[in-house]
Amino acid sequence: MKFTLVGTGSVKGCPVYGCDCPACIRAVMDPFLARRPASATLESDGEVILIDAGLTDIEERFPPGSLKHIMLTHYHMDHIVGLFSLRWGSGLRISVTGPDTSDAPAELLKHSGILDFSRTVSPFAPFTVNGVRVTPVPLSHSRPTMGYAFHRNGRTLAYLTDTLGLPVETLHFFAGNPVNVMIIDCSYAPDMTDAPGAHNSLNDVLELHQRIQPSRTILTHIGHELDNWMNTNPLPKDIEAGHDGLVITL
Amino acid sequence: MKFTLVGTGSVKGCPVYGCDCPACIRAVMDPFLARRPASATLESDGEVILIDAGLTDIEERFPPGSLKHIMLTHYHMDHIVGLFSLRWGSGLRISVTGPDTSDAPAELLKHSGILDFSRTVSPFAPFTVNGVRVTPVPLSHSRPTMGYAFHRNGRTLAYLTDTLGLPVETLHFFAGNPVNVMIIDCSYAPDMTDAPGAHNSLNDVLELHQRIQPSRTILTHIGHELDNWMNTNPLPKDIEAGHDGLVITL
Repeated sequence: MKFTLVGTGSVKGCPVYGCDCPACIRAVMDPFLARRPASATLESDGEVILIDAGLTDIEERFPPGSLKHIMLTHYHMDHIVGLFSLRWGSGLRISVTGPDTSDAPAELLKHSGILDFSRTVSPFAPFTVNGVRVTPVPLSHSRPTMGYAFHRNGRTLAYLTDTLGLPVETLHFFAGNPVNVMIIDCSYAPDMTDAPGAHNSLNDVLELHQRIQPSRTILTHIGHELDNWMNTNPLPKDIEAGHDGLVITL
Repeated sequence: MKFTLVGTGSVKGCPVYGCDCPACIRAVMDPFLARRPASATLESDGEVILIDAGLTDIEERFPPGSLKHIMLTHYHMDHIVGLFSLRWGSGLRISVTGPDTSDAPAELLKHSGILDFSRTVSPFAPFTVNGVRVTPVPLSHSRPTMGYAFHRNGRTLAYLTDTLGLPVETLHFFAGNPVNVMIIDCSYAPDMTDAPGAHNSLNDVLELHQRIQPSRTILTHIGHELDNWMNTNPLPKDIEAGHDGLVITL
């Protein structure tokens, strides 16, 4: 099982359009440092699943027929905006699985085109896709949001964005299901006290890391403020920043 | 005044993702034949206005600070989807002018970021921007939609998409305000009888061309079916197909 962080950016991404902070300037100068909308791919058994669809070049990244399944964490625009053009494809069918579609934009469901929204996931109700067992786990966000625990070869990778902390039932689940690799929303630097929305700062992540005790915690949904903080501060042991294109094998 | 057709595609664009029709195959092989979402720029007095925001790479196309004004025809996603990431810019202000925002996605207005939706346009109420006089003209579409007549140096360019025919009051306006260049929605080939939505076929455009009598009619919002039709059929005199990047000076 190959898990790739396709995008590791917060809603604003990096560079932020018009921003002249050091992190944004660096990302303009070196596109390899840019952070696109938080998203990932899971490859197993010769198939690929895209997790979240905030990228707007899905049609260019995936040759027609190569992408049959998208899993969504939630329906904020930076996680679904790529679906609006993708739906107008021809002769294809792409399953889009995620939380209850009552939270999805009505226009997307009304004119769904090649996208099939008929299957939704339920908290802690595992399913198997392409040989990987998946357990949806509720997150704590401003909209109904689901994280996913991927189990393969006796190991577990948890993909947990967008969230601020974790609901008690999800913490309880992880207490009984050890996590090897935790990929988690860390939008903000530890010193950001006016952070908007429901996203983790590094301090929130540290608490979760100590509680869940994965052997490896990887930050995603990173904002430019955190990038600036990381430019002058080391991350604690066993915690690392994700980057666009980072591959994790399990 | 320099008017550029940035995108000339229908909602599906060309190539349509997964389509193997001749027009789509050609557009895959030669990206210069691709049609991106219908949109345009108007350059005058050293400033640029973007007309419609269906492109998702606005931040790459326009260096920060170079784009201060966007005019919208309507709030269908293929005309506004690029605003969802653009809004998160920093230290900038972009005026977004268009029809009554009661038709705009609530999320876009609630979290408008750097976008200023405070000014809307009214039918036949002219205004001046960057030295160009503009008259908004109502169109006939499935949502409230405005075309724009740009007047400069005694000449008029009318940008009319998305529409099926034109409302009688708009036809009346053009009867008293001759059009030199008409850029118009032509989504469908003349033989398409099951055309969805409220868009012109070439037959509809021919009727409008004869009635309004511009010296030059340029087709936009073109679907792949019309591209296939044009591959084997000539267009009538004074009617030409637009293409992405086409520049019109007035």
